[in-house]
Amino acid sequence: MDSNSPPATSLNNFRLLYLITQMVGITLIILVSSWVGVHLNGLAWTSRPSVQFNWHPLLMTMGMIFLYGNSILVYRGFRYARKKPLKITHALIHAMAFIFTVIALVAAFDSHNLARPPIPNMYTLHSWVGMSAVIIFSLQYVFGFASYLFPGVRDQLRATYMPVHVFFGVLGFVLAIAASLLGLLEKAIFSIKDYRELSAQAVLVNMIGLLLIVYGGLVVFLVTEPMYKRKPLPEDVMLLTHSSSSQ
Amino acid sequence: MDSNSPPATSLNNFRLLYLITQMVGITLIILVSSWVGVHLNGLAWTSRPSVQFNWHPLLMTMGMIFLYGNSILVYRGFRYARKKPLKITHALIHAMAFIFTVIALVAAFDSHNLARPPIPNMYTLHSWVGMSAVIIFSLQYVFGFASYLFPGVRDQLRATYMPVHVFFGVLGFVLAIAASLLGLLEKAIFSIKDYRELSAQAVLVNMIGLLLIVYGGLVVFLVTEPMYKRKPLPEDVMLLTHSSSSQ
Repeated sequence: MDSNSPPATSLNNFRLLYLITQMVGITLIILVSSWVGVHLNGLAWTSRPSVQFNWHPLLMTMGMIFLYGNSILVYRGFRYARKKPLKITHALIHAMAFIFTVIALVAAFDSHNLARPPIPNMYTLHSWVGMSAVIIFSLQYVFGFASYLFPGVRDQLRATYMPVHVFFGVLGFVLAIAASLLGLLEKAIFSIKDYRELSAQAVLVNMIGLLLIVYGGLVVFLVTEPMYKRKPLPEDVMLLTHSSSSQ
Repeated sequence: MDSNSPPATSLNNFRLLYLITQMVGITLIILVSSWVGVHLNGLAWTSRPSVQFNWHPLLMTMGMIFLYGNSILVYRGFRYARKKPLKITHALIHAMAFIFTVIALVAAFDSHNLARPPIPNMYTLHSWVGMSAVIIFSLQYVFGFASYLFPGVRDQLRATYMPVHVFFGVLGFVLAIAASLLGLLEKAIFSIKDYRELSAQAVLVNMIGLLLIVYGGLVVFLVTEPMYKRKPLPEDVMLLTHSSSSQ
């Protein structure tokens, strides 16, 4: 199997970049949390709709950005684990991301509908791009689940769908990054009174935006660079040939 | 050379997608032109700073989006042309994109500085992401020119730099798309009074945003899909070995 595994240096690079990606992702969550905590009056539910909104950026950063990125990286990040547990982990992390996303969407719609007077929904470019990302993400989940976790689907069909699944997976992730940038900008324009003077909050929001790009760039690079591709383990192949064997 | 050329169907797919990409790109320029013409009072220079601004979205769409996309596609779009003329075309289209970009930037800064009272520059996330895209684009031009059009650079250095050049080229393009989305959103919030009611102008701007994503997705797919990679022509190899031969 020697010719099958990537050279040691390229795997070292992968590990370093993977570590940096995780650190950037966690920094993002911390920065959004402090934005919400320090500048946007913390968190609440329907009793205070304008504060309820704050769940939206926080949960989207955790779900559609951090968990989504980690879910698509799981095969390469844990390359020596068996394929089957990796698939289940991929599906579970995505399921968690989906739950976060649904609550984040409810928070945004509530904050519009319960405001006095109500604020219209789905009119900005942020909402259009964000909804496209969520729809792509959800369709991917359904088709991915049906193709790869449902038993009895023909291997040929699975193999044919794989590049499509990967392409739309990455597209949905990049759209989520773009939607987040748009969301940051519209929230900054709507609620930072001194955005023009580049106050502390303004710099914080813009820095979160740049960091989102760094995170997105790193995830897409790590997940698409052919050198970092996970090679099938001997066990994977055995399991494929004798799919009725135990484990 | 048979094994070297991609199968005929995949090249047919490429041609179809390439055609669609061009049509989407031209539609983008037409839609931005009609936005500027119908809704934003057309074009002017320093005499009317608020109208001078309109050169910014128009020239950026033509330069950093349409020409940039076409320039990175030129090797695959004209795969049977010799390498040398392709490199020069790549550099020339990029030079044109750069000129458009500089005028577009002047229009934006003028529209801020000449306004009464002046509007601060470089404070929104749009400006930060956009400037990052322009800086990456410019550095790429300098390094690309020095590496590939300057005679006497060692082939090994050229080959080592190539994946870096491609990665940052695509990154700059994707950032340009992201910056355009941010620019559309901020212009919509700042100047469409009835953005909330999804007026004709609001729908137009949001549709331009979605179309930008389609254009960006198509260009990135066509330029990164390994199946569509241009293979070196026999002439390219000959020219490499006998670089002093005529033609």
